[in-house]
Amino acid sequence: MTHAGPGRPRLHAPRRPGPTARAEILDAAAELFTTRGFSPTSTRTIAEAVGIRQASLYNHFATKNDILVALLEDTVEPTLDFDDNLDPALPPEVRLCALAWFDTAQLSAGRWNLGALYHLPEVRTEPFDRFREERRHLMERYRTLAAKIVGDGDPRTHLPFRVVESVIGMRADDGDVDAGLPEVLATASLTVLGVSDLAAVTSAARALVVGVPGYLLGSMNPPARPPA
Amino acid sequence: MTHAGPGRPRLHAPRRPGPTARAEILDAAAELFTTRGFSPTSTRTIAEAVGIRQASLYNHFATKNDILVALLEDTVEPTLDFDDNLDPALPPEVRLCALAWFDTAQLSAGRWNLGALYHLPEVRTEPFDRFREERRHLMERYRTLAAKIVGDGDPRTHLPFRVVESVIGMRADDGDVDAGLPEVLATASLTVLGVSDLAAVTSAARALVVGVPGYLLGSMNPPARPPA
Repeated sequence: MTHAGPGRPRLHAPRRPGPTARAEILDAAAELFTTRGFSPTSTRTIAEAVGIRQASLYNHFATKNDILVALLEDTVEPTLDFDDNLDPALPPEVRLCALAWFDTAQLSAGRWNLGALYHLPEVRTEPFDRFREERRHLMERYRTLAAKIVGDGDPRTHLPFRVVESVIGMRADDGDVDAGLPEVLATASLTVLGVSDLAAVTSAARALVVGVPGYLLGSMNPPARPPA
Repeated sequence: MTHAGPGRPRLHAPRRPGPTARAEILDAAAELFTTRGFSPTSTRTIAEAVGIRQASLYNHFATKNDILVALLEDTVEPTLDFDDNLDPALPPEVRLCALAWFDTAQLSAGRWNLGALYHLPEVRTEPFDRFREERRHLMERYRTLAAKIVGDGDPRTHLPFRVVESVIGMRADDGDVDAGLPEVLATASLTVLGVSDLAAVTSAARALVVGVPGYLLGSMNPPARPPA
């Protein structure tokens, strides 16, 4: 996303946030998909919203599905990257708390509430296989960490991931969420497991998250507010 | 939903669950909306799935929106009714636990995962005003009960409602949910508030829920499995 990419000259001056035409297409599509719906939005509508020709859009994305794939993968991949870079020797409580904190910040930071599109019928089809696999992989990381805390067969192992994704419903219902939400949900993802006395854990998790570059927290977007 | 209602003779024998044509239309629409999408599904497709003429469908519902309104209101109204009938003198922990238990059972019991449609762009429009108001009203009941436990300004007051609605994401991702889930989420809706030592509370809440007639737990559907 650092080169301007191919494409014909613009019909209009750029009016979308984003350093490249590709980023502007993604931003316009994210707005249209979340406010009008995926099915009723055509690539032509997206091109018009960016101020480029439809043919120019096809230089960046072959299909409308490809645009949604890019948007959805971008809601999951930074969190997987963040988790990949955590020290495997961390206590599971700290690691789970940091993962939940980063993930909530990431899901809160994007200009558009893309998680609201996760359960579209279209997303169950083949072009979204890799996205679904990545999200399943992330879900499994939460579950594995939770199992280290409460034991493998405990039904509560499914809850931390769901607590974090509740930010999606909050954004859909209430619009902007409070800047303190990532800490609230990161803490809640441990209290649902019965972990109490969390001050040391949240303090260690905060230190792991605040060092992360802002661009990771909503990669196409303005830097997120600090998560606490 | 106890009378057969108007309408022309059937094109085919009934093949949908439901005691009336109206219930069959609702079941077919719920399947199509959740598996193919609301926008791409026409009233004609719904009529064909039921085996009736499109004109007969219009005897029951004037618009496609009206069908979705009926389906969505049916995910919220039984829970509001259940809460209306609880003794106002109950301790807030017991009442919140019973509400979360019933609500999770209700959201788990329907044949189709209708909560996955709550955040469709169409549902933000005027025909859905009453549904959105009812759901907001339910949300406020959770928040008010939680505020009696942790205090009014506490950000955790928003969490019990979200913990309960996480059943929607679980169904979307995993299909059928475990019969024990209502108890797990009812308990979690209190542990996220920092309430511990829950045995007496869950026992009192269970007693309030198990006396409820099965038809309330998924009104158009086969009776739910007992919630614990």
